[in-house]
Amino acid sequence: MIKVGIVGGTGYTGVELLRILAGHPEVRLHAITSRKEAGMAVADLFPSLRKRVQLKFSTPEEAPLTECDVVFFATPNGVAMQQAPALLQAGVRVIDLAADFRIADVALWEKWYGMQHACPELVAQAVYGLPEVNRDRIRSARLVANPGCYPTAVQLGFLPLVEAGVVDLAHLVADAKSGVSGAGRKAETHLLFSEASENFKAYGVQGHRHHPEIVQGLAAASGQPVGLTFVPHLTPMVRGIHATLYARLTREADVQALFEQRYSEEAFVDVLPAGSHPDTRSVRGANLCRIAVHRPQGGDTLVILSVIDNLVKGASGQAVQNMNIMFGLPETLGLAHIPLSP
Amino acid sequence: MIKVGIVGGTGYTGVELLRILAGHPEVRLHAITSRKEAGMAVADLFPSLRKRVQLKFSTPEEAPLTECDVVFFATPNGVAMQQAPALLQAGVRVIDLAADFRIADVALWEKWYGMQHACPELVAQAVYGLPEVNRDRIRSARLVANPGCYPTAVQLGFLPLVEAGVVDLAHLVADAKSGVSGAGRKAETHLLFSEASENFKAYGVQGHRHHPEIVQGLAAASGQPVGLTFVPHLTPMVRGIHATLYARLTREADVQALFEQRYSEEAFVDVLPAGSHPDTRSVRGANLCRIAVHRPQGGDTLVILSVIDNLVKGASGQAVQNMNIMFGLPETLGLAHIPLSP
Amino acid sequence: MIKVGIVGGTGYTGVELLRILAGHPEVRLHAITSRKEAGMAVADLFPSLRKRVQLKFSTPEEAPLTECDVVFFATPNGVAMQQAPALLQAGVRVIDLAADFRIADVALWEKWYGMQHACPELVAQAVYGLPEVNRDRIRSARLVANPGCYPTAVQLGFLPLVEAGVVDLAHLVADAKSGVSGAGRKAETHLLFSEASENFKAYGVQGHRHHPEIVQGLAAASGQPVGLTFVPHLTPMVRGIHATLYARLTREADVQALFEQRYSEEAFVDVLPAGSHPDTRSVRGANLCRIAVHRPQGGDTLVILSVIDNLVKGASGQAVQNMNIMFGLPETLGLAHIPLSP
Amino acid sequence: MIKVGIVGGTGYTGVELLRILAGHPEVRLHAITSRKEAGMAVADLFPSLRKRVQLKFSTPEEAPLTECDVVFFATPNGVAMQQAPALLQAGVRVIDLAADFRIADVALWEKWYGMQHACPELVAQAVYGLPEVNRDRIRSARLVANPGCYPTAVQLGFLPLVEAGVVDLAHLVADAKSGVSGAGRKAETHLLFSEASENFKAYGVQGHRHHPEIVQGLAAASGQPVGLTFVPHLTPMVRGIHATLYARLTREADVQALFEQRYSEEAFVDVLPAGSHPDTRSVRGANLCRIAVHRPQGGDTLVILSVIDNLVKGASGQAVQNMNIMFGLPETLGLAHIPLSP
Repeated sequence: MIKVGIVGGTGYTGVELLRILAGHPEVRLHAITSRKEAGMAVADLFPSLRKRVQLKFSTPEEAPLTECDVVFFATPNGVAMQQAPALLQAGVRVIDLAADFRIADVALWEKWYGMQHACPELVAQAVYGLPEVNRDRIRSARLVANPGCYPTAVQLGFLPLVEAGVVDLAHLVADAKSGVSGAGRKAETHLLFSEASENFKAYGVQGHRHHPEIVQGLAAASGQPVGLTFVPHLTPMVRGIHATLYARLTREADVQALFEQRYSEEAFVDVLPAGSHPDTRSVRGANLCRIAVHRPQGGDTLVILSVIDNLVKGASGQAVQNMNIMFGLPETLGLAHIPLSP
Repeated sequence: MIKVGIVGGTGYTGVELLRILAGHPEVRLHAITSRKEAGMAVADLFPSLRKRVQLKFSTPEEAPLTECDVVFFATPNGVAMQQAPALLQAGVRVIDLAADFRIADVALWEKWYGMQHACPELVAQAVYGLPEVNRDRIRSARLVANPGCYPTAVQLGFLPLVEAGVVDLAHLVADAKSGVSGAGRKAETHLLFSEASENFKAYGVQGHRHHPEIVQGLAAASGQPVGLTFVPHLTPMVRGIHATLYARLTREADVQALFEQRYSEEAFVDVLPAGSHPDTRSVRGANLCRIAVHRPQGGDTLVILSVIDNLVKGASGQAVQNMNIMFGLPETLGLAHIPLSP
Repeated sequence: MIKVGIVGGTGYTGVELLRILAGHPEVRLHAITSRKEAGMAVADLFPSLRKRVQLKFSTPEEAPLTECDVVFFATPNGVAMQQAPALLQAGVRVIDLAADFRIADVALWEKWYGMQHACPELVAQAVYGLPEVNRDRIRSARLVANPGCYPTAVQLGFLPLVEAGVVDLAHLVADAKSGVSGAGRKAETHLLFSEASENFKAYGVQGHRHHPEIVQGLAAASGQPVGLTFVPHLTPMVRGIHATLYARLTREADVQALFEQRYSEEAFVDVLPAGSHPDTRSVRGANLCRIAVHRPQGGDTLVILSVIDNLVKGASGQAVQNMNIMFGLPETLGLAHIPLSP
Repeated sequence: MIKVGIVGGTGYTGVELLRILAGHPEVRLHAITSRKEAGMAVADLFPSLRKRVQLKFSTPEEAPLTECDVVFFATPNGVAMQQAPALLQAGVRVIDLAADFRIADVALWEKWYGMQHACPELVAQAVYGLPEVNRDRIRSARLVANPGCYPTAVQLGFLPLVEAGVVDLAHLVADAKSGVSGAGRKAETHLLFSEASENFKAYGVQGHRHHPEIVQGLAAASGQPVGLTFVPHLTPMVRGIHATLYARLTREADVQALFEQRYSEEAFVDVLPAGSHPDTRSVRGANLCRIAVHRPQGGDTLVILSVIDNLVKGASGQAVQNMNIMFGLPETLGLAHIPLSP
């Protein structure tokens, strides 16, 4: 049994992590911290966990985190970089669901995240936790930077094209739509039901923190600089990301075959038959990315549709997938949830 | 392994049954029928089941239903009564998710359902599948009538009061709100997104088929006639029933204790602390009924709040719970889903 | 032209008031205050008002409120009672959309609202602004207490029965469902899209501030004490209240006729044909209450269905209706919006 | 007063047309036809119109359409082309909200719409009713082809760029998201609440009927062939289109100024300040298109955000705008609705 600790855990990635870990056969939940909710039973904050999770929130000081085999950070950006060094020092492995260790270029990270990095020396050691790209390095990683939700959907959708070198890398377009839970469990006006329901809007068109993360991944995959226009949208649903990707074909290729081959061994990436339109609910609650490939009217513009549940393959499910890899467990263990539909 | 057949299965209780059974460790899906979709892979109709359910729909004639240990009917009302006799004859046990065998009084059934019953002699043999009431009889049942969604939420909410004889049985009120999936996967105008979203309405105030079913259950539990006003409402969500129940206390009682004792051994009924307000999402996707008891301002009117997922404890989950009981399996086997929240 | 001032106006009743007043032919918007947003154009906060409302928010100190003919308070509870005395002194008439002047019994008000009343002497002068009850007194009122949203729907639904003395006044039940906008534009966690969407729950079963307001109105109408169980629910839609009311008939009556006669002269109350089920969208955006009367199975329990748009007939529309009455305008002026459906 | 007839009118564009026309000061509703609902009061089908629309549906044969000054077709594709010739013959002007007269190339129309055109000779006479392009021709038109919803949002968003010749016309991308009402009031499974709610998906990526319509308009505006990739998406809201448009700048230009100048005289197109993100609810219920222009990170890819209410500026509102122009009325008459928000 793996002894697991969670730092944070009062947000949506936290409760989703608890849902998944509470059903994982090789995990024992050992500690969870929240300064604000210390002393409260987790199940009192999240009634969905009643009778399934017995833990109480502890303060970070009291929580026996160093006794854990692995600690997940389900915290705002900037927390893990404060606490990870001591845990790693104590031999605890760390998976950060926030962005602290995602960007290799520390100066770039500091520009986008608006703070100074607390442990730049650890950034180089961190492994970017997209198993479909970095599985081998994750196996032995001590510190995993779990990818962002948009970056997961967008990278998995572009990777086969970018790796094969068949598209114009200078003009990629990612038009991405996210459910509101992607913005977290924060009491902000624009996230209110009465603001976000029966409404649709783009945001962050001038720049979004996931842009450099996606570009870094695609540039690494292609070995070349990448130009990406990325437009996120707030969609009136709780869960789900739908990325609609546009790329111009520069070399003839059987694109459907490219995708099928690239992901033939991947348990959590499902390439649909040509001409399909995946819907976000077909992955709701499951650690899955479903992808469909289109070439409308035989032109030179490819359209790739990539869907995930932002809280699962886009966050907590992928974090558990990384944990499974790190601890030599079957990659799918505890991740066999069938999507909830309707 | 239990060999399972499903008749119907193209509706919401069907896909939910498949989701649950596909993850059940003691079940092998053996056959599924749909005249309309015969030849189609189940996963092509329900992409959420891709790579998890390999079955194809067969016509009722071709399907090897008599080879099964148990057959679930996830069909419209009036189908199971046609096909169940032959299956029972062949030694197959039957669980009907529709209403054919729910009402013991055949004439009453015929009045409410507007058709003649095809096998009235079987009605008396059928066991009403509310395990919290009929567990022992279900164990040996050959034919189980799985309760309706409203009747499950309403009966579980009223039962402790009615059995204890502490409320005015002549004037019970059940104000029930259901998600739209409760109406099934039928292409009807009033169920369209553009009709049901951002909208709320009562329906069937003059009379609803679940009324006699609830009254039958409560009368049996109390040993007395019961007068019930039942008002269902269509709520702009997919899943969930919230029953708000009103009963006048006729004898002093510790009502909270009454509920806690009544359900202390029940795995799937969760009595919340006094003063709680269960939300429907706290049971989404799980075979659970959560109940809270209120006595506003210490008056004589009790308010009971009872929530279920209409497709799980209100239909397919309860059907699998019944199957577990019938086959001597642990009652919770394959039903350990933690609610999906948010 | 009536010179209108608004205090507050950054919430949902505020923007709705602006929508209605900006289209009112006899109104000139003269001032709007918000300490927090002072200096900002109203249309920058509410883009729906671009090119239709030119006003900027002012601080309360700078705003020329005393130049106005009438000032609306679209503020949290407790603000109007601070500022109304000076305005009334200056000859300005006041309509308070909050609760400061709704409850005649000041001690009762202070208990429910948890603060000391700042001008208890004005409470007696205030007229409760339900035009269908108090039209004559509103005409000459200097200070109008605009009713709450639930109290509007519930009182209009019960009034004909209570006035006629045909129901058991000791055991009324009001099961009310409100869209989320009824809770206001407050950044609170439980009002987030990801909390309130695809979810349904009761709240405040132990006691809600609208309870004494409803009881006060019904007791006045009947001339007797009234016992009411009132259960509000949070419904996953933005706008709309659906009140399902239960009352036991104590004397035979043609209930449908009772309702039709009671409201035959009312422009904003629509009694539907017997057996109807009004939906909330049939009043969305309009100053209307639609009511249907049921007597299920001819029993002695009546079921009344009453729907309003909580922001219009339940707040800002009713406030403008009151203004029309106070200033001798046609009661429907500027209130001819046809509901937006779908 | 203009005597107005409506053919069809049982769908969403029909009820929206009735909402707008019932409040139009220069219109008298004279006849409305529906074979299926003949004899039924319009307000019985659409309770939102109770007490505001007195008309009953007539059969097409009985309806006094030839007495009208103008007849709107709010019918499925293929109906107007059957009935328009006789009406035009009788001197009645016609506005078709469907697609029968939108595409000048009859063969192309027949290919996309899968039927033979009944009056190809009239296609050349029809004026495409996008007032921002064709205002002068609409004035004298006898037959107006009201644009589709997507084409309105997409064309208004691209027009300033295309007319100015500053973008790569061969590789335009329109990623468009529509509320479900855009699909009409048809009882189809994929439009059910339980299918479309809490879900997001693309559709018709291989080809959509609005593609040739958009291309025709943009080619006419630019005088050159246009290459467009158009991907529509079904969004879980009732009303609203959000078009996210991508175009590569080929010549330096002050794009914000370009848009502001192009639409400076347009009452129904609102160019937002640079850097804005219009939301669909900011136009809900109003005949408005709001547009924002972005050039992320100063690159060569422009992002244009264009929002409309698909039932108003995308259908019925635009139809009334056309009527106003045709009959010499102020273009904004009866179209002053302020968007309903929240």
